[in-house]
Amino acid sequence: MHLLLSNDDGYHAPGLAALAEAMRSLGEITVVAPDRNRSGASNSLTLDSPLRMTLQDNGFYSVDGTPTDCVHLAITGLVEEEPDIVVSGINAGANLGDDVLYSGTVAAAMEGRFLGLPAIAVSCVAFQPQFFDTAARVARWLVDKLQRDPLPADTILNVNVPDVPWEDLAGFQATRLGHRHKSEPVIRMEDPRGRPIYWVGPAGAEQDAGQGTDFHAVRNHAVSITPIQVDLTRYDALEKVSGWLEQ
Amino acid sequence: MHLLLSNDDGYHAPGLAALAEAMRSLGEITVVAPDRNRSGASNSLTLDSPLRMTLQDNGFYSVDGTPTDCVHLAITGLVEEEPDIVVSGINAGANLGDDVLYSGTVAAAMEGRFLGLPAIAVSCVAFQPQFFDTAARVARWLVDKLQRDPLPADTILNVNVPDVPWEDLAGFQATRLGHRHKSEPVIRMEDPRGRPIYWVGPAGAEQDAGQGTDFHAVRNHAVSITPIQVDLTRYDALEKVSGWLEQ
Amino acid sequence: MHLLLSNDDGYHAPGLAALAEAMRSLGEITVVAPDRNRSGASNSLTLDSPLRMTLQDNGFYSVDGTPTDCVHLAITGLVEEEPDIVVSGINAGANLGDDVLYSGTVAAAMEGRFLGLPAIAVSCVAFQPQFFDTAARVARWLVDKLQRDPLPADTILNVNVPDVPWEDLAGFQATRLGHRHKSEPVIRMEDPRGRPIYWVGPAGAEQDAGQGTDFHAVRNHAVSITPIQVDLTRYDALEKVSGWLEQ
Amino acid sequence: MHLLLSNDDGYHAPGLAALAEAMRSLGEITVVAPDRNRSGASNSLTLDSPLRMTLQDNGFYSVDGTPTDCVHLAITGLVEEEPDIVVSGINAGANLGDDVLYSGTVAAAMEGRFLGLPAIAVSCVAFQPQFFDTAARVARWLVDKLQRDPLPADTILNVNVPDVPWEDLAGFQATRLGHRHKSEPVIRMEDPRGRPIYWVGPAGAEQDAGQGTDFHAVRNHAVSITPIQVDLTRYDALEKVSGWLEQ
Repeated sequence: MHLLLSNDDGYHAPGLAALAEAMRSLGEITVVAPDRNRSGASNSLTLDSPLRMTLQDNGFYSVDGTPTDCVHLAITGLVEEEPDIVVSGINAGANLGDDVLYSGTVAAAMEGRFLGLPAIAVSCVAFQPQFFDTAARVARWLVDKLQRDPLPADTILNVNVPDVPWEDLAGFQATRLGHRHKSEPVIRMEDPRGRPIYWVGPAGAEQDAGQGTDFHAVRNHAVSITPIQVDLTRYDALEKVSGWLEQ
Repeated sequence: MHLLLSNDDGYHAPGLAALAEAMRSLGEITVVAPDRNRSGASNSLTLDSPLRMTLQDNGFYSVDGTPTDCVHLAITGLVEEEPDIVVSGINAGANLGDDVLYSGTVAAAMEGRFLGLPAIAVSCVAFQPQFFDTAARVARWLVDKLQRDPLPADTILNVNVPDVPWEDLAGFQATRLGHRHKSEPVIRMEDPRGRPIYWVGPAGAEQDAGQGTDFHAVRNHAVSITPIQVDLTRYDALEKVSGWLEQ
Repeated sequence: MHLLLSNDDGYHAPGLAALAEAMRSLGEITVVAPDRNRSGASNSLTLDSPLRMTLQDNGFYSVDGTPTDCVHLAITGLVEEEPDIVVSGINAGANLGDDVLYSGTVAAAMEGRFLGLPAIAVSCVAFQPQFFDTAARVARWLVDKLQRDPLPADTILNVNVPDVPWEDLAGFQATRLGHRHKSEPVIRMEDPRGRPIYWVGPAGAEQDAGQGTDFHAVRNHAVSITPIQVDLTRYDALEKVSGWLEQ
Repeated sequence: MHLLLSNDDGYHAPGLAALAEAMRSLGEITVVAPDRNRSGASNSLTLDSPLRMTLQDNGFYSVDGTPTDCVHLAITGLVEEEPDIVVSGINAGANLGDDVLYSGTVAAAMEGRFLGLPAIAVSCVAFQPQFFDTAARVARWLVDKLQRDPLPADTILNVNVPDVPWEDLAGFQATRLGHRHKSEPVIRMEDPRGRPIYWVGPAGAEQDAGQGTDFHAVRNHAVSITPIQVDLTRYDALEKVSGWLEQ
């Protein structure tokens, strides 16, 4: 098996090193990751400038682009042998609920949707994780299981792992995405020259975070596994919109 | 009514001017758009740097960030009176099928999902549109209709308008997103100093583009209207993943 | 005469418009300026990415690069007929003493050092100038005089104009650059996520600003004109260094 | 002695590692360098955004800014104990003649002009140097000599070292900067979407490169040492400009 790894924290991030370490036992790995932190990059693609790829000392390739650029280049010709699966992460920080819209970690996995095995995005639920090895072991367990007991190839799994020792995990749960409230207000500051600047505020608090959601799973120390779709059509609204147009 | 307008082609783009012109008759408009072309920005959010907002000569605000940043700032405090609706566009170029994952135009609309009326993303199906006024008239028609005959507030409409005179439009169709093949291969070049550079290749050809899809509608000169969801959970796979985990 | 105009405040800056307006009466003008504010860009050149040039509504070309990029492209092939002179500005803010090391306005002029007439950098001594027309008239007077009464072609003139009505100017003075004290200390802040960020502090106070310096001239409402060199060799230290090496 | 090291190739560049290795024997070293390649950055300063500093695994600090930003932050408060000297490099590539106007390596040294000892910029005359250790040994020799046999503190030395073994160096020469012809023409390409893009052409050929110049020294395998000034006033033209203004 040939595994393509990426992330959005950059090629030098400890979470990526932990992931690579765990994946090596499963097959050949190729790592193509951003040359710096690109958190919040979502599925953005660099269309107006060319990209450069550099082989780093640790054997990883870095690209001066987004997570999506990295996986895109890798599976459209940069890597000679097409990978079987994309695993993205391990992100330092959860990707729960609405977070997935903005996440570069999840986007890197989505870009692997044309490959032979489901893509996986793995995040650790802590800003400064202590237990990347737990999340790495979860990733290895999942890939191993996918090989022996396949899921449909176009599935994407968004995985959030509590930042605890492996033996403290309260199992695995298939979850739906919860939802957050609207973001906290914009934060106004002045720069040292007295001009106004604005920071995007923190993500909103949990709104829909009950039983069955990813929020609920990780709060209870379980690994949350959410199947994600790339078809954004809202099928259940099609008929209503159709009728609305005809009135 | 208070309309918030944005786009991903930048505050100076003619498509945005056409949209603003059409919306003015419907209520108060506030325009907050990127200071330059940010096509392909998807839902990316600027988390590591502060943003600046500038009032431009044409009365629009520009922000040195992404389309998502623009709408985010506007609805979390920058604009005093909360808008009722976000209308994004008019994009120079279609946003069909998988395009919506990468589109800044669609992302700007998605960021308006917490407001009182459905958000709308409008794109013109041509790289150098001749008939922005057709798409602008479509946008006005839709907003006008939404006021008189509401849809659920959390609906997002992805609208693609053929680049033809209004009278040549073959009606409005509610559509699902089609799908494209995998992208064309990465394009390798050498920079003038002999070092390799790589360009993201063109979007893949239409794969699933039959009756009922957005591709099919615009090919037949109809306005395509696709309801979009922001909940990426793939509900129909939840049970399977759940069972898979239990084995 | 063919005049090439540029600046570092961006193609849309009012100072550039005032300059272009004044220069039109002297010959053909071509304006190539950055697509956004690039103050502090010094002589930086974009070597790793390609540049794009756009013809804007006001007839100016914008380039997604530095002031130096703009002039460099223009005089190495982008503009068909080689210009005779580069005039850069009108900068909103003085470029006095050590400022010239960092100034994009001065750098744009320096990049015109291979042309047939001396290059000129014009700055207005106010952050929000009221009298750009005064500085524009100074620029026209200088170019006109250079045509009738030439200076050596490889001269670069750094011109600072007080922000007062033309009739309040206290003449023109040939000056040397003064010097500033070391910059004010770095400014530490925290971003909203609690992480440290650092801003470059304000330029240092005047240190060497007596009679004969540019600081002194503008303080006394005179136009300051400083001839600038591009040969950074410190000739008066050559012998000393030579002797030092031989010891 | 406390040495502040920087460069423009980025904190991870092998030339910087070689320099740090050589300097460690002379005193305490602090390394603050750009987080990525910033060649061609000249003296550009980041005025509109805040900067972030990161302590890297190799003990160096990286800053998401220019070489000038790095030294500026370090000597205006980021580093607790003020350094005595700035040494910048070792650049992969020569900085000869007009190159110094654009060089980030030289600019980093210039930013150290307020410290107690002369600043030094060291470059290796090869794009992919084989003998960084030669240049490193030259740097150590110079700093050591400066301590025992001082030069005026406000001197800046631009040092170019042939890429040969130490024993093949043909001595040290105090040189003046030579000059290059105008740059090679802009290079036009088309991006994959058919739109024109432009690359800055290669530096011009040597024009003034005879005996006494830096070009001549390195061509003859000597280390070239050019004293540089930061006062850009062209004193020998002051009188002429003064007379010209009075006519």
